[in-house]
Amino acid sequence: MIRIVILGAGTVATHLCKAFLASDTCEVIQVYSRKKISLKSVPAYLNTTTSLSKIKEADLYIIAIPDDAIIVFSETLPFKNKLVAHTSGSVAMKKLSSNNRKAVFYPLQTFSKDREVNFSQIPICIEAESSSDLTLLKKLGKAISEKVSVINSSEREKLHLAAVFVNNFVNHMYTIGSEILSEENISFDLLKPLIAETAKKIETLSPKKAQTGPAKRNDIKTIEKQMRLLKSSTNNDLYNKLTKAIFETHGKKL
Amino acid sequence: MIRIVILGAGTVATHLCKAFLASDTCEVIQVYSRKKISLKSVPAYLNTTTSLSKIKEADLYIIAIPDDAIIVFSETLPFKNKLVAHTSGSVAMKKLSSNNRKAVFYPLQTFSKDREVNFSQIPICIEAESSSDLTLLKKLGKAISEKVSVINSSEREKLHLAAVFVNNFVNHMYTIGSEILSEENISFDLLKPLIAETAKKIETLSPKKAQTGPAKRNDIKTIEKQMRLLKSSTNNDLYNKLTKAIFETHGKKL
Repeated sequence: MIRIVILGAGTVATHLCKAFLASDTCEVIQVYSRKKISLKSVPAYLNTTTSLSKIKEADLYIIAIPDDAIIVFSETLPFKNKLVAHTSGSVAMKKLSSNNRKAVFYPLQTFSKDREVNFSQIPICIEAESSSDLTLLKKLGKAISEKVSVINSSEREKLHLAAVFVNNFVNHMYTIGSEILSEENISFDLLKPLIAETAKKIETLSPKKAQTGPAKRNDIKTIEKQMRLLKSSTNNDLYNKLTKAIFETHGKKL
Repeated sequence: MIRIVILGAGTVATHLCKAFLASDTCEVIQVYSRKKISLKSVPAYLNTTTSLSKIKEADLYIIAIPDDAIIVFSETLPFKNKLVAHTSGSVAMKKLSSNNRKAVFYPLQTFSKDREVNFSQIPICIEAESSSDLTLLKKLGKAISEKVSVINSSEREKLHLAAVFVNNFVNHMYTIGSEILSEENISFDLLKPLIAETAKKIETLSPKKAQTGPAKRNDIKTIEKQMRLLKSSTNNDLYNKLTKAIFETHGKKL
């Protein structure tokens, strides 16, 4: 049984906590949070603390707090030579405090407070300094997911960069689509089947092969007409840049 | 029984044809295509022709050919006062030849040759010049889909513009993600659960509320680090522009 202390009580911490609780391989022995109020989202029967000095002895400490706070926080932990993993896509493992054994346990998914998560299909990217620590993380990863990959910090930063494109930037495209429709009082629901199919297509087709649309087929007339329709200069500029990028990728020129 | 002639034998024509064949409300009496070879994708028991002069008498003629060929093609039809609908998101209804009664039957979805389509969930956007023609199109739309909307040409061009963002541009974001990973020999499969969840999220959450990531949380350190990682100047520029657009939408400044 892997004994875990979770450091943090936000969205990722809560989802991980639930997934660990559902597994026979590990045990969440404590959840730490700086603020008492944050611990409200943690199941009531779990041991919690807001005091660093009261953190229990465990096999693994998982830091699940905002990316920009991880490094400094890792230096404040009042113990040594323990296995400490963060859960971030963007922070290099070596940046963790050298007081403890460094590791990463990064679930590659976007988490929302109120959405249930099926961890079994979420890739868990792990990294550690020693093979025995890596073995423990692998065991823990497999306890909650079918997809565990050993990914080093340099690969992970590329993964996280790619994730920003396919998640954050994609979501902004949805926002622009919704803005264009709301100007005309057209329901965003009309776009939902298209959004679902666009995402489903690349499960079996490479995104390069799945590309369609005016830019792909070099339909200058439609491109010019659509750019005239865009009132927002920011969106107009984005349309132009994205169209040129598609031209470039698919070997066409303006 | 609505008697239909389909003009065209490409991907949209073939998918529509199949959907009509599965319905009791309509009958595909003929498929026309300029080239004999294109008619290979049409079920063998259907009447087909490559000659405009041999097109049969029908209640509705559906033009399903590339956008930029629709207007000219509609002028070449050798009959008058018939109901002729195109299936395009970007062509205004009034641009069809005045020889016939103009209409639009636009299925708002991305179609691929080898992917099965469930029409019942695809929004069908219809437009016609008279209420009786609109009634016929509505009946036909309901024969294959649960979602039929009356959408005029000005609304339809906005819908099509929004579709370019949420489909074509989103797919290009997937392409960039896949390129970033292939440089490091990391499998694109790792991103697929994230892509699926990003699309699923907006079924219940507005895209503006669903936004996450370094740009949303004003994490300048991560943004600068990620921009340094992007080797392609096109992708670097896109990252910068998309980040600024998210700042703008969510009330932050660089």
